[in-house]
Amino acid sequence: MIIVLRSAASEADLALIEEKIRDRGLSAHVSRGVERTIVGVVGDERHIDPEAFEGLDCVEKVLRILSPYKLVSRDFKKDDTVIDVLGQRVGGGSVALFAGPCSVEGKEMMVEIGRRVKEAGAGFLRGGAYKPRTSPYAFQGMGEEGLECLAAAREATGLPVATELMDPRDIEVVARYADVIQIGARNMQNFRLLAEVGKLRKPVILKRGMSATIVEWLMSAEYIASQGNQEIILCERGIRTYETATRNTFDVSAIPVLRTLTHLPIIADPSHAAGKASLVEPLSAAAIAAGADGLMIEVHNQPEKALSDGPQSLRPAAFAAMTERLSRVAAAVGRRLGSS
Amino acid sequence: MIIVLRSAASEADLALIEEKIRDRGLSAHVSRGVERTIVGVVGDERHIDPEAFEGLDCVEKVLRILSPYKLVSRDFKKDDTVIDVLGQRVGGGSVALFAGPCSVEGKEMMVEIGRRVKEAGAGFLRGGAYKPRTSPYAFQGMGEEGLECLAAAREATGLPVATELMDPRDIEVVARYADVIQIGARNMQNFRLLAEVGKLRKPVILKRGMSATIVEWLMSAEYIASQGNQEIILCERGIRTYETATRNTFDVSAIPVLRTLTHLPIIADPSHAAGKASLVEPLSAAAIAAGADGLMIEVHNQPEKALSDGPQSLRPAAFAAMTERLSRVAAAVGRRLGSS
Amino acid sequence: MIIVLRSAASEADLALIEEKIRDRGLSAHVSRGVERTIVGVVGDERHIDPEAFEGLDCVEKVLRILSPYKLVSRDFKKDDTVIDVLGQRVGGGSVALFAGPCSVEGKEMMVEIGRRVKEAGAGFLRGGAYKPRTSPYAFQGMGEEGLECLAAAREATGLPVATELMDPRDIEVVARYADVIQIGARNMQNFRLLAEVGKLRKPVILKRGMSATIVEWLMSAEYIASQGNQEIILCERGIRTYETATRNTFDVSAIPVLRTLTHLPIIADPSHAAGKASLVEPLSAAAIAAGADGLMIEVHNQPEKALSDGPQSLRPAAFAAMTERLSRVAAAVGRRLGSS
Amino acid sequence: MIIVLRSAASEADLALIEEKIRDRGLSAHVSRGVERTIVGVVGDERHIDPEAFEGLDCVEKVLRILSPYKLVSRDFKKDDTVIDVLGQRVGGGSVALFAGPCSVEGKEMMVEIGRRVKEAGAGFLRGGAYKPRTSPYAFQGMGEEGLECLAAAREATGLPVATELMDPRDIEVVARYADVIQIGARNMQNFRLLAEVGKLRKPVILKRGMSATIVEWLMSAEYIASQGNQEIILCERGIRTYETATRNTFDVSAIPVLRTLTHLPIIADPSHAAGKASLVEPLSAAAIAAGADGLMIEVHNQPEKALSDGPQSLRPAAFAAMTERLSRVAAAVGRRLGSS
Repeated sequence: MIIVLRSAASEADLALIEEKIRDRGLSAHVSRGVERTIVGVVGDERHIDPEAFEGLDCVEKVLRILSPYKLVSRDFKKDDTVIDVLGQRVGGGSVALFAGPCSVEGKEMMVEIGRRVKEAGAGFLRGGAYKPRTSPYAFQGMGEEGLECLAAAREATGLPVATELMDPRDIEVVARYADVIQIGARNMQNFRLLAEVGKLRKPVILKRGMSATIVEWLMSAEYIASQGNQEIILCERGIRTYETATRNTFDVSAIPVLRTLTHLPIIADPSHAAGKASLVEPLSAAAIAAGADGLMIEVHNQPEKALSDGPQSLRPAAFAAMTERLSRVAAAVGRRLGSS
Repeated sequence: MIIVLRSAASEADLALIEEKIRDRGLSAHVSRGVERTIVGVVGDERHIDPEAFEGLDCVEKVLRILSPYKLVSRDFKKDDTVIDVLGQRVGGGSVALFAGPCSVEGKEMMVEIGRRVKEAGAGFLRGGAYKPRTSPYAFQGMGEEGLECLAAAREATGLPVATELMDPRDIEVVARYADVIQIGARNMQNFRLLAEVGKLRKPVILKRGMSATIVEWLMSAEYIASQGNQEIILCERGIRTYETATRNTFDVSAIPVLRTLTHLPIIADPSHAAGKASLVEPLSAAAIAAGADGLMIEVHNQPEKALSDGPQSLRPAAFAAMTERLSRVAAAVGRRLGSS
Repeated sequence: MIIVLRSAASEADLALIEEKIRDRGLSAHVSRGVERTIVGVVGDERHIDPEAFEGLDCVEKVLRILSPYKLVSRDFKKDDTVIDVLGQRVGGGSVALFAGPCSVEGKEMMVEIGRRVKEAGAGFLRGGAYKPRTSPYAFQGMGEEGLECLAAAREATGLPVATELMDPRDIEVVARYADVIQIGARNMQNFRLLAEVGKLRKPVILKRGMSATIVEWLMSAEYIASQGNQEIILCERGIRTYETATRNTFDVSAIPVLRTLTHLPIIADPSHAAGKASLVEPLSAAAIAAGADGLMIEVHNQPEKALSDGPQSLRPAAFAAMTERLSRVAAAVGRRLGSS
Repeated sequence: MIIVLRSAASEADLALIEEKIRDRGLSAHVSRGVERTIVGVVGDERHIDPEAFEGLDCVEKVLRILSPYKLVSRDFKKDDTVIDVLGQRVGGGSVALFAGPCSVEGKEMMVEIGRRVKEAGAGFLRGGAYKPRTSPYAFQGMGEEGLECLAAAREATGLPVATELMDPRDIEVVARYADVIQIGARNMQNFRLLAEVGKLRKPVILKRGMSATIVEWLMSAEYIASQGNQEIILCERGIRTYETATRNTFDVSAIPVLRTLTHLPIIADPSHAAGKASLVEPLSAAAIAAGADGLMIEVHNQPEKALSDGPQSLRPAAFAAMTERLSRVAAAVGRRLGSS
């Protein structure tokens, strides 16, 4: 960490800063330039909060040298993390396909969709039993009954199932049914929830928060990892910007940027990013071309009757046709679509 | 709700849309223009999700006529909501002052700060016992022990206390100690938590999410209100933008905009918006001038040793000097600083 | 256009609005709902500014039905526009390659880079003679001498050249040398400049403004088209968001979104979006996969000595290796890399 | 400037960096830490572009120590710049009032509005003769005839007039009539235009670009100052964010932030920020409370018939009533409304 003092800073200010650094068990290296005095903090800066200095009147700015996360960083672990779920893999050169409806709406529907997406190459069945909805008047999910539908679909198809956890009080029941637990964008900084899934030994999909920076996202992954659970899948799902032509702005650059910063697998959710079925294929192709380890695609057998996210859901036949085309894009960048 | 069809939409498309509208118990009013066919939805559009139409290929766009919230809207209740907590009021012409440290760090410190901010005119003591921190390695708050410190400070000063709730599992213990419960920015769309505080009969401060629109913020308030709790205080605390000169961009316009949309009181937290103590006074003055019903200010007796948010905390003496100056701004816009 | 009145609007308010609509030669269609009165504007709403109503106290909101642009819209012209420049085509199924240095720095260097990028499949040579630089102390471009270098490189290689125009006073000299004129992001709303290039009969690359919506971008294209020049190439180059991991956020969704809204060709500039050479390939691949009609890539023979944009420039050999890989991605989505 | 190398950087990488620094006439100070090697650049970093290093593979990041602007910085000149125009002052403790219509629409109208705003305390008359409009089909301003109307209003009222310059080709004619030249938000990075007004000896209002950072804004001011014109007035007019409840998000924090960074006077334009007349007063009050040196307010005698920006224009009577109330806010923060 580098602390830049204001030109008006006094010797007493400098002494105070040095003391604060020493109090934290680190040492200070002072460099007096013509225009500014700079203090370098020597030691593991992860144990020191820039805030401790930023607020001081004598400080102009504080610059981090190291990233604030550790366990999830590429520096900590050079090799890509590959996650195996009932024989389906995420990471390691293939493009995993998570497909299914936004909300679980019934057992038959889940079994039906599960079969169809499996035929089309999907390795995981997704579906929400607990739904975070902007409106209190909207459908909030089937709850445990929905989890049972997911389990039935797994039994019928052999596909591992992924579903969202919204509340720490549901963790036992969700973990009992789910093979992969999803933390949604709105809960990316629900730190209590992150700590809880960190204690599980189950893969976690961590979606990027609506306006989370890549660093904040990795810090949230670090919350999970620091509790012992290293099986974390990062999922880009679009960020909030001023542009309203799409529901969110799909940040495709996040994929190659994360690749250098972290060893965790990175998947993309073009359905939520775009909010429109017609955009799902071009964005899926873009994500694969940019190096994504997987896709999460909303598929519904009757999108026009879906209880949520109908506009962005594909029909099973459209999904199958799309995966065929996407497999060519995957091949073009040396990957294979599907995860088994 | 107005549904605009693409120029290429067919009669069959139109029929499907009309059926979907009728399925929801509403009726459709079709208007065929030269360039576009438009379908008006007649009836309470709050029961119909624009998503149900946005995804259809034949639909160009869906425009809402009414706001999606109801109980918290100015249309629903014309008069300003005024909230009374142990004789301190929020709303109704005064500017309530919530002051105290970011984190509760001990009993003596809370009593001391409580006394000092009360002398300076504060009507509420704030302090976090459960802290949402970006890093898993940072101080996470004192928990129940912190709540006890708050209670001790209330007993010593008579000031009602406000503190944050992060986890539905903590609701009983937090509600036992707190006079006002705060939902932080990162939990603004933690819908399960909102539903829980909606069942309480205690005032709730609902902070604006980091990238929440005003409409989403009001929808989160609607979650609380729809469970029966109408005592909601909205707190603007800055939004995320591309500008990095301040931690967040304090959206002062939100204050007058909300005034026309909702009957709920609106306060401002310039400390978190700015992230820098030197900006607290100008932003506080701006908030009051724009019509805020209150301020939430971080005050710490030793900011340079604070366990969190030191950079933006004022010392008690600086807080007292500031409130004196702010009281003149309040008077200039026909309000009175302080809430009793 | 739909005008939604506030619930408190009076009959006199409504009469005023109807009068304003008639004054503009259009007619009003009033629909009185339970909660709101709505006025539909019948006629070509492009001649009426929503502002004329938005400011009225009795108006809650104004909703556009039609897009505000016309000549550049897909509704106006169904078929894709294909632009031919000295036998090189942009649009129509291929992926055109514009390559070259950010700034023209000399004749030999331009000839050398021109030869190298041509060998690697580029169809156009790019290079800036007039440079918009954030700092007045930075290199501002070689001016007309730079244009001469471009002309020399064209002569040596046969590649048409593309270069930026910043100032209406330079239009004659730039048009004399350039085959394609580029309007940079900072000038996307320099309406006088747009009007001037609209009078030329030369293709124009219109870069997206740093924070331009897709609609505003198309309106700027409409400025050019309305003067008679229909040969406009839209270039996505990243937008400004809160994320700082990349210089800009490359909005890959803009490509398929524009495809439905306009008939103009759409290219992408991943170099400026990312600001980092290592991101150029994944973003280029993503752009092609999402349907781009071309790429603009910064190539420099000595990036470490470049006078501008060195960090994001590729060496000729790296560019050649990349185009080979990108040609596979293009093939996977049914396109061909290169434009002749 | 501090250059942080990647952990994998070699000695050869380091040597290259040192050479690049020396090539620019500066010297390097290398510090080898446990996790990273850091290179400090000693000398005036304004002559070195971070880009020269950011793109190198061995570089993790480049951190600036000094601001990239100089002449406009508070470090360069401690005392506030006060600008005098025909006896009206901007800066130095008062709150200057620029008032008038968005567009000049005729001579009588300008004289009439000029008289009314002068009576209400305005010190400057504003009005646009050249108008940057998003649509090519909208009213583009009266041009030189509009400038003549402004001159007539100045003669009738004695008020200095401020008007926008959009095109370097108009500089002579605009400078002949205007007392203060305005550079609009869309031209904040029209560097050729900035250089031209830098050669004048007339005060310039430099509006903040739609998505300009404070640093970029000051760099644009530096462009003007570096040509010799130090009479620059910065005008905050709202920035582009994801929030759509207001046309732009008025960044009130920019006022106190700029106060510490620059000696230039800072005014605010709440009319453009808000886009709605009803928000002009609360935002004006907020700007004054936050320390603004002036306001620019749109006033029109018939807002409902205005050719542009009617929605946000106040009538003269409303403007007069507002200034009376705002003068109390100004007094509360130790300032005086009006600039003579």
